[in-house]
Amino acid sequence: MNVEKLFITTRKRTEEICSPLKTEDYVPQPAIFASPPKWHLAHTSWFFEEMILKQNLSNYKEFNPHFGFLFNSYYNTIGERAERINRGLITRPSVEEVFAYRNHVDSYMQILLKTDLSKAVEELIVLGINHEQQHQELLLTDLKYLLSQNPIHPVYKNDYSLVQNKNMEQGYIQIEEGVYNIGTESDSFHFDNEEGVHKVYLNAFEISKSLVTNGDFIEFIEDKGYENFNYWLDEGWSWLNENKIKSPLYWKKIEGEWFNFTLSGLQKLDSNDILSHVSFYEANAFATWKGTRLPTEFEWEIASDHFDWGKRWEWTNSAYLAYPNFKIAAGAVGEYNGKFMINQMVLKGGSTATAEGHSRKTYRNFFHPQYQWQFSGIRLIK
Amino acid sequence: MNVEKLFITTRKRTEEICSPLKTEDYVPQPAIFASPPKWHLAHTSWFFEEMILKQNLSNYKEFNPHFGFLFNSYYNTIGERAERINRGLITRPSVEEVFAYRNHVDSYMQILLKTDLSKAVEELIVLGINHEQQHQELLLTDLKYLLSQNPIHPVYKNDYSLVQNKNMEQGYIQIEEGVYNIGTESDSFHFDNEEGVHKVYLNAFEISKSLVTNGDFIEFIEDKGYENFNYWLDEGWSWLNENKIKSPLYWKKIEGEWFNFTLSGLQKLDSNDILSHVSFYEANAFATWKGTRLPTEFEWEIASDHFDWGKRWEWTNSAYLAYPNFKIAAGAVGEYNGKFMINQMVLKGGSTATAEGHSRKTYRNFFHPQYQWQFSGIRLIK
Amino acid sequence: MNVEKLFITTRKRTEEICSPLKTEDYVPQPAIFASPPKWHLAHTSWFFEEMILKQNLSNYKEFNPHFGFLFNSYYNTIGERAERINRGLITRPSVEEVFAYRNHVDSYMQILLKTDLSKAVEELIVLGINHEQQHQELLLTDLKYLLSQNPIHPVYKNDYSLVQNKNMEQGYIQIEEGVYNIGTESDSFHFDNEEGVHKVYLNAFEISKSLVTNGDFIEFIEDKGYENFNYWLDEGWSWLNENKIKSPLYWKKIEGEWFNFTLSGLQKLDSNDILSHVSFYEANAFATWKGTRLPTEFEWEIASDHFDWGKRWEWTNSAYLAYPNFKIAAGAVGEYNGKFMINQMVLKGGSTATAEGHSRKTYRNFFHPQYQWQFSGIRLIK
Amino acid sequence: MNVEKLFITTRKRTEEICSPLKTEDYVPQPAIFASPPKWHLAHTSWFFEEMILKQNLSNYKEFNPHFGFLFNSYYNTIGERAERINRGLITRPSVEEVFAYRNHVDSYMQILLKTDLSKAVEELIVLGINHEQQHQELLLTDLKYLLSQNPIHPVYKNDYSLVQNKNMEQGYIQIEEGVYNIGTESDSFHFDNEEGVHKVYLNAFEISKSLVTNGDFIEFIEDKGYENFNYWLDEGWSWLNENKIKSPLYWKKIEGEWFNFTLSGLQKLDSNDILSHVSFYEANAFATWKGTRLPTEFEWEIASDHFDWGKRWEWTNSAYLAYPNFKIAAGAVGEYNGKFMINQMVLKGGSTATAEGHSRKTYRNFFHPQYQWQFSGIRLIK
Repeated sequence: MNVEKLFITTRKRTEEICSPLKTEDYVPQPAIFASPPKWHLAHTSWFFEEMILKQNLSNYKEFNPHFGFLFNSYYNTIGERAERINRGLITRPSVEEVFAYRNHVDSYMQILLKTDLSKAVEELIVLGINHEQQHQELLLTDLKYLLSQNPIHPVYKNDYSLVQNKNMEQGYIQIEEGVYNIGTESDSFHFDNEEGVHKVYLNAFEISKSLVTNGDFIEFIEDKGYENFNYWLDEGWSWLNENKIKSPLYWKKIEGEWFNFTLSGLQKLDSNDILSHVSFYEANAFATWKGTRLPTEFEWEIASDHFDWGKRWEWTNSAYLAYPNFKIAAGAVGEYNGKFMINQMVLKGGSTATAEGHSRKTYRNFFHPQYQWQFSGIRLIK
Repeated sequence: MNVEKLFITTRKRTEEICSPLKTEDYVPQPAIFASPPKWHLAHTSWFFEEMILKQNLSNYKEFNPHFGFLFNSYYNTIGERAERINRGLITRPSVEEVFAYRNHVDSYMQILLKTDLSKAVEELIVLGINHEQQHQELLLTDLKYLLSQNPIHPVYKNDYSLVQNKNMEQGYIQIEEGVYNIGTESDSFHFDNEEGVHKVYLNAFEISKSLVTNGDFIEFIEDKGYENFNYWLDEGWSWLNENKIKSPLYWKKIEGEWFNFTLSGLQKLDSNDILSHVSFYEANAFATWKGTRLPTEFEWEIASDHFDWGKRWEWTNSAYLAYPNFKIAAGAVGEYNGKFMINQMVLKGGSTATAEGHSRKTYRNFFHPQYQWQFSGIRLIK
Repeated sequence: MNVEKLFITTRKRTEEICSPLKTEDYVPQPAIFASPPKWHLAHTSWFFEEMILKQNLSNYKEFNPHFGFLFNSYYNTIGERAERINRGLITRPSVEEVFAYRNHVDSYMQILLKTDLSKAVEELIVLGINHEQQHQELLLTDLKYLLSQNPIHPVYKNDYSLVQNKNMEQGYIQIEEGVYNIGTESDSFHFDNEEGVHKVYLNAFEISKSLVTNGDFIEFIEDKGYENFNYWLDEGWSWLNENKIKSPLYWKKIEGEWFNFTLSGLQKLDSNDILSHVSFYEANAFATWKGTRLPTEFEWEIASDHFDWGKRWEWTNSAYLAYPNFKIAAGAVGEYNGKFMINQMVLKGGSTATAEGHSRKTYRNFFHPQYQWQFSGIRLIK
Repeated sequence: MNVEKLFITTRKRTEEICSPLKTEDYVPQPAIFASPPKWHLAHTSWFFEEMILKQNLSNYKEFNPHFGFLFNSYYNTIGERAERINRGLITRPSVEEVFAYRNHVDSYMQILLKTDLSKAVEELIVLGINHEQQHQELLLTDLKYLLSQNPIHPVYKNDYSLVQNKNMEQGYIQIEEGVYNIGTESDSFHFDNEEGVHKVYLNAFEISKSLVTNGDFIEFIEDKGYENFNYWLDEGWSWLNENKIKSPLYWKKIEGEWFNFTLSGLQKLDSNDILSHVSFYEANAFATWKGTRLPTEFEWEIASDHFDWGKRWEWTNSAYLAYPNFKIAAGAVGEYNGKFMINQMVLKGGSTATAEGHSRKTYRNFFHPQYQWQFSGIRLIK
């Protein structure tokens, strides 16, 4: 797909994701780790305005000088930013104004896209598109978390797609011991954190073709997996007890039966569905209970040609750290990935909420081990 | 005014207060001590539904069975209530639905008001009206606090009344030593906490006819009042340091000049205006710095016939405790006032945000000593 | 008793209180509200050194220049002080050195006491003695709290006196309505907060001659008093739930039987003993459950000639605030009482831990409503 | 050295470390991450009692049944344990009793050591010895942290060895690209986390023979390294700001000159000394500022034959995770290392506080990235 088309498709998809929302839903920030839909809408536009239009379109007219302050995120190089924890209190600009901001940015971007773009600018636009695709996923996961806080279980969309919930294959893939290439030098878009092919030595291993299901996890629960510290990392055990965790996020037991809060409201749990919304601690405890382990990100990447993936982000037992020869890009774009390389674990794959074509086998997603609000699941090593 | 007319006037004023709001403004809860406008709108309606219509109008049809859970407040007797801290996450019901709820309750209330009401029911309706008037003031103070969190200083209303900001009189009133009557036995509406005339013995005192102004308080600041622990209660001094308090709430010094965030946006501070948005700690420190003291609630009540009041709630040096023979009413209504009788200080008077006719000289308002977000000012004893 | 004798007796009693301690017991600070025994020993000596010897004994030689910093308390006027929360980390000076400090101060004080003292200095010495008596009580209550944190229930003293645990009288005293005098103008020592006789108007009341017993309180517990919000102030109810309070401090139910941690270790609870270690919240809830109320500090003071008191500090329903004409003394001594006049409730009486002759009917003790670690009990108004 | 001799030497060294302490120093717990000396003394003895004597010496007589509860640590399998945060409140047993406990355990251990030990028991004893050596280092680091909290800078030992503070060599080692063996299969003692030789693929690299010095780090500070977010991981930047970190732990600037709190009290900082007491965040920021990086644990291990190490624990850029084929031992011993494999970074080497012979090149020490209280320094990759 050419860049202009990809730009338009992506911008449109963001708005489609928001189409079932009421104005009120755009406002709150339900937790420190999540952002309001309005903020996602504005921040993705701000990226194009600040990183691309201001530098590369001479007649660009800034939409509103306050927005740079309100809608940047971790980009410390670009002025002060509003406190992350207070994003839910910014009722103005209104949702309507934020959509106007998007339109404004889109119009100018379309002018820019029709010009003869340098390679550097084109790459920056593609980065902006991929950045927006990442926020599309967060839009959905943050919104799900927000709606789940409401005791009346609101419905986002009645017909929210459930097609990606089932395993297609069973059994194991065997991979031989040896030296393998990891990472990418492709000309296609990829993030700085996956850049540069390097060699890793892997022992032989067998990896499952299928993901752990709700039914598998119910066995763990019924075997008192949440009550036996032997299965848990020490910090996982503390997390469990402090937060009174007794199941994956969004599971509720009502009169002896398991229900699941979904983007289509509260539903009966299907034990054949692929498990989702577990933390790394839960993923690791489950694997320990099974007498097995999670794959490393390297094992996953090497084996991934041989199994079906993309239905759930899959926790690996790899810490999110720099690859050899990882370089931080100069300027604000350099803040993108490198500064998060501590205390987070790598997830591979993708999910129902991931934009089509966004992920690839070298893609490195990452979250803190306690977080459950992403569509995160488990694949096991034999 | 008869009850029906008072009911209609009051319900209408609540909606008038909200008329300048955008839908987004109705949603957030900016602090644990404040509630979203949407919640105020719904909760005041819930009071009439739950306390009056359900018990007294046989054909009353509940609007939505979830609302009892979502919109009760401290009324522990009536079912569980949603966590106070999470009120800002309840995006559904929408603002539109909450207005529909109000209309629904109003229609049935008007049916009820046309029937032959028992004295008990009429009293309960008048209580509901006064309850709503209290929430009208909170609507304004909570909204002001919300808007103040936004770095771009939104305007609630350009022409928000400023008429009550100036002192009309100067000088002091002298009151003789003796036994005085406090409280009320009037037939007119009053709260349980002011009920029952009782005697107090007062020493002679002189009380100011005017309230402390912004200019007076600037002298305190310029004399380093916020930096000298001698003027402060020990807990006030801790509060000051932990919260880095250096001025009344909403004051900002920009390039050497004082500005004030108001419901009409950020404005230059007028030193002749009556001071507002100080905590009890600040009021007490100011009085100590001046070599004087705050009045007790009894002194204030006895002297109040002789000065102009109602422009600012005035901190007294009286703890909010029960009057002799205070009785807690049976049932949910009994939770109204009595259970807050600890760690709060009495304020007397009223403010620009107080509904007309709502306050009276026996009225006992109360807040914790650290709170600044009410329209709270200072009157001094000589 | 003359001042010199009182000084010697008091200083000796402090050391007697400490005599059963091991060196280790002198070190920890078990909570923000309690101090290590070593700190109490040093701080009371520091008071004499800093307030009296340095100013009034020309050849006084400071023991150690660091001690002024380490062992002052809330006296903000006298240099910086170490963070209150870290008192338990100050292992040096050793206990032995602190006793040497006491001896040093005592020697010089005895020199001073043999000189011809001005009235002002004598008053300051008597203040120092009363200050030390207050810390004697804290020594015992803080130590009890410390030992209670140890899962093996250490014994402070096997024969710790239990004589003051029983009520001597039953029945009620009747007091007539009228104007009464409160406070003192006596020449004998008293604190600034009780200074100045002033008049209060009291309604008629009846007050119990006896204090509430453990057995009385067990009835409250068994009637589910801790589970019914109707009996509790709103903040009491929050305190209860956040801290999982289910009984007075130090009570433990072991295999269906109530035990009580005491300074003589864990003991079976005697239901005839006077109740102790309740918070104001519990005292107030108990009174509400009984359909009665706590006395005000004024009622207590007026009635106190007619009943036996001194066995337990008794919560009143009076906030700790200034009496009319209360004056703060100049200088550091002025910080003694006035700056704590917020968010605390008055207790009257005394306890087994109070030094003989220390309390009197006008004495105003005060603590925050949530604290249970003092020897605090309940007397009821009919 | 044979096991008996090693046991005696190790037990004796622990007590030698404690010999300069006063009784008071044994008591406090200065932070959640540190333990009181008394606890270290007792806990190391408890390990021998619980894991070895109780199971393997038929006539062993338990010293005190409470100690199992008071002095176990993370061993969840062996009964409940006292709350980690409250270790500083356990004044009884006294220090004297804890030494008696050590003697008791030592006597029985010496009986056991004279018997014909199975290989399994001998291995467990060697584990106990290595466990005690680890606590010897913690004794010193925790004690240093405790004494540093005291404003009067107490001295642990005037002549505390400073010989290991200087670099012996300069320059860089070059290592070729290739497959290398990591870990150990030696018959000598090693921990489970270093067990099992496995292959890793390394790119070519050059590593410094010397460690970063205080002088090097002063350049970073003077270049405003602590004020420029570009050098910092995002969580490091937050840590820095929340904790107001402006230098390595124990550095104090007094009148323009750098001082360093040491176990011999406050000393002038020597710019030629090897830097210590930096967090991973600081180590990583320093390397980034230098335009270089930290080694991985694999690079360090492979290069370590070619440089002098053991003067400071050295932060690596490797997360502490399981090696391939890592197995958790059955029972309580299995809790030793595996359950800490999250959110910690590996340190290699050793320090002045490490027992002789305790560390080795395959040794994997680990701490959270924010901790500074270990003797932790920096070695750079070119």
